[in-house]
Amino acid sequence: MGSDRKFLVINPNSSARMTEDIRKTVDTADISADVICMEKSPEVLETFADYTVAGCNMLRYIENNDPFLKKYSGVLIACYGDPGLYPLKERLDIPVIGIAEASMSMALLSSHKFSIIAAVPKAKAMMENMVSQYGLNGRLASVEALDCPILEFMKAPEKLVSAVEESLERAFLHGAETAIYGCAGMTMLRDMNFSHRVSILDPVSAGLYQLEALVKSGINMSRAGLYQKEVM
Amino acid sequence: MGSDRKFLVINPNSSARMTEDIRKTVDTADISADVICMEKSPEVLETFADYTVAGCNMLRYIENNDPFLKKYSGVLIACYGDPGLYPLKERLDIPVIGIAEASMSMALLSSHKFSIIAAVPKAKAMMENMVSQYGLNGRLASVEALDCPILEFMKAPEKLVSAVEESLERAFLHGAETAIYGCAGMTMLRDMNFSHRVSILDPVSAGLYQLEALVKSGINMSRAGLYQKEVM
Amino acid sequence: MGSDRKFLVINPNSSARMTEDIRKTVDTADISADVICMEKSPEVLETFADYTVAGCNMLRYIENNDPFLKKYSGVLIACYGDPGLYPLKERLDIPVIGIAEASMSMALLSSHKFSIIAAVPKAKAMMENMVSQYGLNGRLASVEALDCPILEFMKAPEKLVSAVEESLERAFLHGAETAIYGCAGMTMLRDMNFSHRVSILDPVSAGLYQLEALVKSGINMSRAGLYQKEVM
Amino acid sequence: MGSDRKFLVINPNSSARMTEDIRKTVDTADISADVICMEKSPEVLETFADYTVAGCNMLRYIENNDPFLKKYSGVLIACYGDPGLYPLKERLDIPVIGIAEASMSMALLSSHKFSIIAAVPKAKAMMENMVSQYGLNGRLASVEALDCPILEFMKAPEKLVSAVEESLERAFLHGAETAIYGCAGMTMLRDMNFSHRVSILDPVSAGLYQLEALVKSGINMSRAGLYQKEVM
Amino acid sequence: MGSDRKFLVINPNSSARMTEDIRKTVDTADISADVICMEKSPEVLETFADYTVAGCNMLRYIENNDPFLKKYSGVLIACYGDPGLYPLKERLDIPVIGIAEASMSMALLSSHKFSIIAAVPKAKAMMENMVSQYGLNGRLASVEALDCPILEFMKAPEKLVSAVEESLERAFLHGAETAIYGCAGMTMLRDMNFSHRVSILDPVSAGLYQLEALVKSGINMSRAGLYQKEVM
Amino acid sequence: MGSDRKFLVINPNSSARMTEDIRKTVDTADISADVICMEKSPEVLETFADYTVAGCNMLRYIENNDPFLKKYSGVLIACYGDPGLYPLKERLDIPVIGIAEASMSMALLSSHKFSIIAAVPKAKAMMENMVSQYGLNGRLASVEALDCPILEFMKAPEKLVSAVEESLERAFLHGAETAIYGCAGMTMLRDMNFSHRVSILDPVSAGLYQLEALVKSGINMSRAGLYQKEVM
Repeated sequence: MGSDRKFLVINPNSSARMTEDIRKTVDTADISADVICMEKSPEVLETFADYTVAGCNMLRYIENNDPFLKKYSGVLIACYGDPGLYPLKERLDIPVIGIAEASMSMALLSSHKFSIIAAVPKAKAMMENMVSQYGLNGRLASVEALDCPILEFMKAPEKLVSAVEESLERAFLHGAETAIYGCAGMTMLRDMNFSHRVSILDPVSAGLYQLEALVKSGINMSRAGLYQKEVM
Repeated sequence: MGSDRKFLVINPNSSARMTEDIRKTVDTADISADVICMEKSPEVLETFADYTVAGCNMLRYIENNDPFLKKYSGVLIACYGDPGLYPLKERLDIPVIGIAEASMSMALLSSHKFSIIAAVPKAKAMMENMVSQYGLNGRLASVEALDCPILEFMKAPEKLVSAVEESLERAFLHGAETAIYGCAGMTMLRDMNFSHRVSILDPVSAGLYQLEALVKSGINMSRAGLYQKEVM
Repeated sequence: MGSDRKFLVINPNSSARMTEDIRKTVDTADISADVICMEKSPEVLETFADYTVAGCNMLRYIENNDPFLKKYSGVLIACYGDPGLYPLKERLDIPVIGIAEASMSMALLSSHKFSIIAAVPKAKAMMENMVSQYGLNGRLASVEALDCPILEFMKAPEKLVSAVEESLERAFLHGAETAIYGCAGMTMLRDMNFSHRVSILDPVSAGLYQLEALVKSGINMSRAGLYQKEVM
Repeated sequence: MGSDRKFLVINPNSSARMTEDIRKTVDTADISADVICMEKSPEVLETFADYTVAGCNMLRYIENNDPFLKKYSGVLIACYGDPGLYPLKERLDIPVIGIAEASMSMALLSSHKFSIIAAVPKAKAMMENMVSQYGLNGRLASVEALDCPILEFMKAPEKLVSAVEESLERAFLHGAETAIYGCAGMTMLRDMNFSHRVSILDPVSAGLYQLEALVKSGINMSRAGLYQKEVM
Repeated sequence: MGSDRKFLVINPNSSARMTEDIRKTVDTADISADVICMEKSPEVLETFADYTVAGCNMLRYIENNDPFLKKYSGVLIACYGDPGLYPLKERLDIPVIGIAEASMSMALLSSHKFSIIAAVPKAKAMMENMVSQYGLNGRLASVEALDCPILEFMKAPEKLVSAVEESLERAFLHGAETAIYGCAGMTMLRDMNFSHRVSILDPVSAGLYQLEALVKSGINMSRAGLYQKEVM
Repeated sequence: MGSDRKFLVINPNSSARMTEDIRKTVDTADISADVICMEKSPEVLETFADYTVAGCNMLRYIENNDPFLKKYSGVLIACYGDPGLYPLKERLDIPVIGIAEASMSMALLSSHKFSIIAAVPKAKAMMENMVSQYGLNGRLASVEALDCPILEFMKAPEKLVSAVEESLERAFLHGAETAIYGCAGMTMLRDMNFSHRVSILDPVSAGLYQLEALVKSGINMSRAGLYQKEVM
């Protein structure tokens, strides 16, 4: 890149396999970044309890690694629930974004309505809640659940491929124009071509490029309101 | 009460003073409950980082106190940001509610529009975000910030009283019919009478009675969707 | 209860059978209340004309029974359309709530999205309109119509049971986590256990306990704005 | 008009003066219509109790005057709260509209955002609630209260004029492009010219012409859903 | 009509056939109007590119025909995408409305929820976007696509009739009470009776009568805000 | 950049001065792009008529320059009203974004609520309408008008600077965390530092980087739904 800009990509879970898949996406992209995972977090994050633990681990990590973090220009949280997003935006002096918010921001530009492909029904409810918190219901076509836990499809990618294929048509019938993979683990399908007119968006790639855009713009997390660092 | 129903009230911060004030409200109410605080949490919770730590502490607490918790019929989280609410709803086998969601639920019945009285501008943004996540924007008149950090007004209650007084008129001008104290610490004003036609609601009392209503109804946290315990 | 708190439960229609079923729910609950019906109202309330007549009857009733009403601490209107709710909130000096608003308030605490089980398609449209007026669309999963008029299912409860069973699955597919019986008459199913992960909420019980919570909190109908008694 | 089309305009209150003012507006318009009032209703309608009584009176009126009503092609309810609107739409075999819904429908065509000029603060809350029920919040700029009860300004029209003048600027600052008189009684200002760039809309005239448009189109109240006559 | 009021109806495309069908609707209605089409526009308008060209043609037309336009009291744009609506509202000194906005305004009075019958899936997305821009999502049941391009059904009206028939039931299942033809070309079905309880609304007739209502009311496009003619 | 990626930046108006300012922003950014303007468009775009003409000019331009456009990887429309956005997204085979939608997408990542700084009150109404069409009202704090036409402040940048300064405080009081310059011409303030805690975002820079992010992601305009090229 010719720039000395470097990002930190945090996989908030402890799966070596998923961390590796995220690293491959980083390598494919024209982005300089380190990828780490949170070793004390669960292997996959599927519940609010998992998110809470992962959020806490990330918060502790940044508090303990202050000098180390100085070399980074931005942080990407690579889990589709955006765990720990608000506290990290609040705490760090550099831009922090999550792959969920980043991929939705990008989908707004490629389409009017997007769907999210979630692993399981519980994730569907969790993502609808998140989209509502982000105030983006007006652009959401649907969340489509694959009925397949993350760990299982990581073992059987071909099963995932056919489940995604079917979900694209359901998303289309709900009005989707773009479908976003609702899990960092699905980044392994990054280069897969599905012959459906609904576009597919890998949130890890989207997150990397959105972070780069933000950093190049010189925009940091606003210190007015929600992400204010200290009270008053 | 004649019933053997007992609740657990968790103050997610470590302030002995605030815990004591909450306990006084519990004593005044006709409710049997134990009040505990999270000793490893910050003294007041004012940032997302504070919420994350407090959420994690509560989660660890319930995981370590399984037998002890068996004697309770329900849990009330007594902090107006509802920290740790979703993971605790998900994990525990008994009803769990937060004072923010509970007081809003009650305000829906006493008025068409409610305002929340927040301590500081950052809290205003945090509460607007929470109300949006709860899908209740259509009933929110405003969040009014007092421009006074929680610790300060705990030291100078008379300052708090006059700040609340002024905020009631601002809330009224924004269309509020009921104003909710946006901090568990304000429960110390529980019996204060303000001569304003906007009604005032103490969220700790509201939370206790809403929890009792829920438990008497025999309704538990739904296990479909958002609060599903396990994936699939 | 040890308290001298007593409520008035008004069934706005004239059905002795439905009044009896409501009374049974009151008896089961740990609540002291009188149950009356409006003898000049239609036997069931299924149209806006029915609601108008019932609302008028209730208004006349409270105007003619001022001294008698003094012994009550609160009023529950037990019809899922909440007929006469706003004028009674406005007129009476004690808290007045309807079973529709009360059950939705409670469902907000047990789940993110709720569905309402309505008797017939017209009721479905009426309830969607009501939810919109209450500003709660963001929490509504769906209104499911049973295609069975109230009078008919009162004669054939077993038909109602199987219709409800089917509607639970439809509600779940629409994202519901809690389903509310959309008719006071369905309170006769109060103790029925349906083996579906969507929770069921009886609005008469919910209304009784929500009214109790409100009264214990010492909160009355706000006199600012919508429920102001007199003009200026 | 050359047509034998005739409308019935119902003033739901009992004010002879207001009925007369409405009749003058009808005469000015190129519309054939009878104007009646409900003699057993209050002189002005300012509370939900007033609306309930007026709605009941109108319902009884149409039930008792079936043959008489046969000569009309449509009904206009001339009170800005649209009392009795839904039951009359449901019951009558001809189009029924209210001046509130009709004037908003027209304002949608002349501007992006409209404000309503209400007499008093309570009316402001009532109208915001009505706009929300009609699903038109996205087009509402504000409801501006004049702080002057209807009866008073009917006695002192010059006071009304200056209050309206001031409210136009407030409405403009809230983003209004059109302001609607929020009371049938204000139709007496029908021909008044205010030198403000916010347009003014008299809801009685708007209602008459919208009713004519509907009737000429041959469109009746839909019998699917909300205004279905009978259940199933 | 006895009045010297005359309207200009602009078919923004160049189809002689569709212009003729629109003229027939005008003749049937009791309205005095000239119907013109834009000869340099595409034969049908199905894309945003088509809309842009048509909008530009109409703008140029009104700029070149200033004296000629003086004889009209209002303008109706007769294409369901309302192309060129905002610039014409802004520029002309007389009321200008589009058949899409006008028919929705009318449907608000005959029903709580309406559906739009669109020719093809792309039109469905375009109309949902338009309804969102108009802030009327709360009243929209659905947009139903017929999967039949406009030109094709103009050649085979019987095919259109059966496609409309099927779409009415789909609209009903989505909660529609009124269905609006989402294309000026469908005005040829103006007098067709479909035996479905969902009402049907021809937007060309609705537009003519709504324009008449607006003009009779003496209301022009507001010059505050969106349709302001000049800047400052 | 080391890449042969090149963008086309279209200034839809004919101002040489504004085109030059945009070019300077492009040069400052690490982006390879040609900047052109539409010579037959008005000097500034302030009305819907201006937008229509500009949109038509851009459409004609891309139709006449097909081979020339082949060398670009993406197009940025550099006017804050996003004129011609939908038709160009629909027509071109490469990603097309507008600076309004792009800057809002970026503001979603740096803050919860953003304000837009518009030149004049009419622009305020136009932008509120646009934000509503984009479904982003939930994230909009306010549009602040400077009461200064574009041409004037281009002549007196110091006047613009002080007007922006004042608007930042108004935006903050409306809850804004980030303020976006609502005019491509304001890009000349790109490097100006305002000492206010509300962040400022230059939409031209944001647009360039968001376009780069989109193109690097390999995401094109979706061909399902709104931006479908041909009908069926």
